[in-house]
Amino acid sequence: MPGRQPADPVLSSFKNTMAKTDKADRLKARLPRGLQDLESDSLRVTHATLQKIRAVFERYGFDPLETPAIEYTDALGKFLPDQDRPNEGVFSFQDDDEQWLSLRYDLTAPLARFVAENFDRLPKPYRSYRNGYVFRNEKPGPGRFRQFMQFDADTVGAPSVGADAEICMMAADTMDALGLQGQYVVRVNNRKVLDGVMEAVGLAGDEHAATRLTVLRAIDKLDRLGLDGVRALLGEGRRDESGDFTKGAALEAESVAVIMGYLETGLELPELRGTVAGAEGVAELAQIEALIEASGYSDRVKIDPSVVRGLEYYTGPVYEVELTFETVNERGETARFGSVAGGGRYDGLVARFRGEKVPATGFSIGVSRLLAALGALGRLEQTNVPGPVVVLVMDKDQTAVYQRIVSELRAAGIRAEMYLGGSGMKAQMKYADRRGSSCVVIQGGDERERGVVQVKDLIEGAKAAETIADHEEWREARPAQVEVPVTEIVATVRGILARHGLDGR
Amino acid sequence: MPGRQPADPVLSSFKNTMAKTDKADRLKARLPRGLQDLESDSLRVTHATLQKIRAVFERYGFDPLETPAIEYTDALGKFLPDQDRPNEGVFSFQDDDEQWLSLRYDLTAPLARFVAENFDRLPKPYRSYRNGYVFRNEKPGPGRFRQFMQFDADTVGAPSVGADAEICMMAADTMDALGLQGQYVVRVNNRKVLDGVMEAVGLAGDEHAATRLTVLRAIDKLDRLGLDGVRALLGEGRRDESGDFTKGAALEAESVAVIMGYLETGLELPELRGTVAGAEGVAELAQIEALIEASGYSDRVKIDPSVVRGLEYYTGPVYEVELTFETVNERGETARFGSVAGGGRYDGLVARFRGEKVPATGFSIGVSRLLAALGALGRLEQTNVPGPVVVLVMDKDQTAVYQRIVSELRAAGIRAEMYLGGSGMKAQMKYADRRGSSCVVIQGGDERERGVVQVKDLIEGAKAAETIADHEEWREARPAQVEVPVTEIVATVRGILARHGLDGR
Repeated sequence: MPGRQPADPVLSSFKNTMAKTDKADRLKARLPRGLQDLESDSLRVTHATLQKIRAVFERYGFDPLETPAIEYTDALGKFLPDQDRPNEGVFSFQDDDEQWLSLRYDLTAPLARFVAENFDRLPKPYRSYRNGYVFRNEKPGPGRFRQFMQFDADTVGAPSVGADAEICMMAADTMDALGLQGQYVVRVNNRKVLDGVMEAVGLAGDEHAATRLTVLRAIDKLDRLGLDGVRALLGEGRRDESGDFTKGAALEAESVAVIMGYLETGLELPELRGTVAGAEGVAELAQIEALIEASGYSDRVKIDPSVVRGLEYYTGPVYEVELTFETVNERGETARFGSVAGGGRYDGLVARFRGEKVPATGFSIGVSRLLAALGALGRLEQTNVPGPVVVLVMDKDQTAVYQRIVSELRAAGIRAEMYLGGSGMKAQMKYADRRGSSCVVIQGGDERERGVVQVKDLIEGAKAAETIADHEEWREARPAQVEVPVTEIVATVRGILARHGLDGR
Repeated sequence: MPGRQPADPVLSSFKNTMAKTDKADRLKARLPRGLQDLESDSLRVTHATLQKIRAVFERYGFDPLETPAIEYTDALGKFLPDQDRPNEGVFSFQDDDEQWLSLRYDLTAPLARFVAENFDRLPKPYRSYRNGYVFRNEKPGPGRFRQFMQFDADTVGAPSVGADAEICMMAADTMDALGLQGQYVVRVNNRKVLDGVMEAVGLAGDEHAATRLTVLRAIDKLDRLGLDGVRALLGEGRRDESGDFTKGAALEAESVAVIMGYLETGLELPELRGTVAGAEGVAELAQIEALIEASGYSDRVKIDPSVVRGLEYYTGPVYEVELTFETVNERGETARFGSVAGGGRYDGLVARFRGEKVPATGFSIGVSRLLAALGALGRLEQTNVPGPVVVLVMDKDQTAVYQRIVSELRAAGIRAEMYLGGSGMKAQMKYADRRGSSCVVIQGGDERERGVVQVKDLIEGAKAAETIADHEEWREARPAQVEVPVTEIVATVRGILARHGLDGR
């Protein structure tokens, strides 16, 4: 599709509307709620971060894949929470052939669709990474957006827990590559282990689904509430400091004891090992631990019985990356930063399409959350893109001359532009300042006659302004400004950029 | 949002559904029509191309901006063609507060919204570039997708045609950076000139909108149909080779003569210069020409009276990048590749929100079309990402040993993986082949006891296979396979990668 759209009659009404625009019927320019515009600083940082993640995933032998933002609604399934809201958490619309389409809400369901559709021709195991925006039709809140970026990696067609161990190590290497050494832990558990615990306390079976969920949620809060808090939630319930009461799972004392035993002794719990699922889960975790240890990741990847992870589709190992440093949250409380990535094994997801189980495991990084964490630590990639060199327009009849100077600078690889606004000298200098320009090039009539320009170093100038108080003295000194022949503009600008450690690009 | 979604009761139905899946109610895995999955080769090429475009735009002093995929429908306006289809060409859905949302169909309308919303705090002129997906609710066709990528750059707040000239030069530099030297032309015209021509033949005013459009479309076809074809379309109409008849604008002979005069003599036409709009447009084009010439772009950027460009919102200079080489289209006809980018000045678009006119100009590259063009010329960036080194799993009890080898390779910056499927030696070799691996590392029980591995160079091996016909001889020679101590695996693999000009990443 070449550039902007083709001409058509329905378009022609626009110009007419224009003329009539007045305050009353003027459109309000507003970003839809829960969405965000990303400007240059955050975009440059995002790109640099994505590039680092990509490099690690590539080194692990994963290949890029990109699926579209739109899928058939039935292919996505309905795994999202808010049942009382339209579309149940996803943005959906009907196509003209009556089929329902939805914006993807994660990158896993589309991967399952892709793999199922192209199964025979893909190398197996199929190892892919994907990054892109996902969309949630949820109530927006602070730091909670309706469009946000995920960065996923998945191995499909690998039954061995070696695939899970590998994802955990890759998660650790990714955090290291981002400069987070020593400030995270990859916590690993196994859904089968949790199933075993549930079975041990008589909570297997569909009829206990709701109770099971309450129990899993309680276990998931070990970090935050400690053993006593979890115990309360397994029993009658818990009143927090604000006075709010959370109803508990109302388990019998004996069951509570087993679950607390699990949280205290972990995989050694005899009741757990006595169940089929539990024994299998424990064995898988032992295998993962051996692989982790053999590769020297034991300090960064740890088995943790309290890891639950949400989605019901997980069928084996589950894992998450937790940042362990503390920050102050929006309520002013000091807290651990928490989880920035997570995933697990989902052997059933591709089977929805293919009938047969296809083993798969993978994880997803919440990119925005990760960037927030890096920002909190001051670990954001410094992108060091200087503002453009601005060639001022001192004489509107001479733009061809100024344009030629700009073109020379650009041809030399220097980021540069001619001032294109309609304002005078003072506004132009202010503009260069707003853009973070390292220097400006000035040529008035006098300079043009003499074949020279003034090059003003704005960084140096700002420093000088701090020390020179007197206006007269300033005018005399003309700090950080040099007059050079037009043939030396590029060399002069290069010198200024080099002096400030910039490369001009 | 940390990784995948939180647990919730509504999710729990999934596992139960799983058990019941059989052929009858199995979901069909299918990509929605008009959408595409992008796999590793095309993604790598796309990224490399985007990176080159970005570098040029940065050098011109444009900063990145990203707006969300979703906007309020009223903010987008209705500039799209297909009125007889639902949503009139855009994908729309209602929010729970009853407001209509749409997926953006281009990157210009969202820019206008962004600038209007943040007007006071932005430096002016505001120079931004944006790339991202846009969505069209149109009938898909060959090469016509419902989601595709655009790469735009715009200058907002610059009344001077210097801004238009700059975009044209940047378009040329972009094409050069992509290796298209001498195979494109940036064609420039001015909507005011076209308005002047319309006025000269009495087609100004709302009542002539439909005829005007027919005339502009005829002019737009000069390239393809030549002067005689256009003349026919300005008169009664034209029958093409297939026998199809296109109704013409039915202009009087005198009007046809003026317009043909315009196409033949261009801006010199006295009737054109006699109109207010025409005279203004001609003067602007002269300024642009002077700037282009001063900077040495005259060979690549040319004034062309037949450029029309579609959107009615253009108010001044319009421009497009046309690839001039020939390809064979889907109907087997030889044709010029055509337009891959276009844009123009749209001084009224931001005014929809602000009431006052805000001058703006910019252009949009159709990235998919550009990639198709580069592909046709064999000019696609060679990304040179080798397949991963695959460490074979010869003994399932020894995965920790294989994993350690993989981790060492990765720590050395070499793209590597352990085979994670469930298959035997032959399938593993086939897998390495499918992945484009440069070599595999093999360690059976015997090798393990002796502390060695076999490293097999698959690239060399493939060459040898072409020359060695005899199976016995092959077994004897073991071409391209070396046995090395485990301590020398990294060095050996590095040597193989270097031999084939690969860096392993």
